[in-house]
Amino acid sequence: MTSKPSPYQAKITNISNSNDGKWIQTRKIEYQDPAGTPRIWEMAVRSTRTTTTNIDAVSIVTILNSTNHDKEIIIVKQFRPPTEKVVLELPAGLIDPNETIESTAVRELIEETGYHGTFVKQSIVVYSDPGLTNANMVLAYVDVDLNDPKNINPIAQLEDGEFIEVIKLPLHNLLQSLEQLIEKEGCTIDARLYHFAVGLDLAKSVLS
Amino acid sequence: MTSKPSPYQAKITNISNSNDGKWIQTRKIEYQDPAGTPRIWEMAVRSTRTTTTNIDAVSIVTILNSTNHDKEIIIVKQFRPPTEKVVLELPAGLIDPNETIESTAVRELIEETGYHGTFVKQSIVVYSDPGLTNANMVLAYVDVDLNDPKNINPIAQLEDGEFIEVIKLPLHNLLQSLEQLIEKEGCTIDARLYHFAVGLDLAKSVLS
Repeated sequence: MTSKPSPYQAKITNISNSNDGKWIQTRKIEYQDPAGTPRIWEMAVRSTRTTTTNIDAVSIVTILNSTNHDKEIIIVKQFRPPTEKVVLELPAGLIDPNETIESTAVRELIEETGYHGTFVKQSIVVYSDPGLTNANMVLAYVDVDLNDPKNINPIAQLEDGEFIEVIKLPLHNLLQSLEQLIEKEGCTIDARLYHFAVGLDLAKSVLS
Repeated sequence: MTSKPSPYQAKITNISNSNDGKWIQTRKIEYQDPAGTPRIWEMAVRSTRTTTTNIDAVSIVTILNSTNHDKEIIIVKQFRPPTEKVVLELPAGLIDPNETIESTAVRELIEETGYHGTFVKQSIVVYSDPGLTNANMVLAYVDVDLNDPKNINPIAQLEDGEFIEVIKLPLHNLLQSLEQLIEKEGCTIDARLYHFAVGLDLAKSVLS
């Protein structure tokens, strides 16, 4: 039996110019600024967005009660070609045609982490990098019952070409844990997960 | 004297396909997955990234001590053509050629908000949407002395075509304040600012 490949084994072999891709394309926007002056803006778009929700993706917040009563959050680690690095992120996925946010969240959590969860609520729609792209997402909060037999030994159901590792980190000192992991392994992090951790950390000093 | 145009007065007039733009382009990446299988990935890139830092942008965290002793964060509001909406974000800007992160942060805070601040520290490099783009950024923490005469009546130094409004919101209940503003005005929000506010909010229940 061969060992599971580490995400760190992936590597870039070439990057070429692309006159608009199959999945990622560019658009030129003509708009009027607030003063009425006509202007031009460029953006990147995902060609995969469907009209069912007009939302690209769902990211999943799952907080687990660990054995020592410290709450932990589920994080995934995978090689992301655009960054040329392994990246720490919340579990997430694109919404399939005719799929709801709720079913996307539950499905992606099983596929990427093996945990079977229950959808609790979703956030408002938010934009990943609104000067660059119309890419948008919602946060889905999913509960996982660790006493459910299906969650005793969770097995991810990865698609061909997906190599995702699951880690659980305590919410307490999450920012420090993430930065230590990044320093130690030479990986990097999704800005949204990082900002979440910065908010958690700042709360300790400013809200107390 | 004409009144200052509201960001809500902006509107989209046309969106057309663009075979790669001046500012936003696409790239095709050839890579080997962790198992050694050759694969293709597509991404969006900013053509403006310079080799000085290899970082696209700086977002600015500025916490103010308000008169009633509640700490407030500086947020900007502007029309973002890719979203077709007015967006709430942290003050931010692209790094100019040969510019440092420190000088970008101080310059952009003055330009977008009028506040003169002192650079305190910067975060690690983080990726805005690592499945979609190599766009990356750092968070810069900037101190603003409200007793400095330059900060008594801050006047933004906006470039032609920039229409940015500055708001200050208490960190206490930031998530609720942001969601109320979005509901009331019909604006939207940058995912990174939103995740920051979710982290702040979650801290109240899970870290106490």
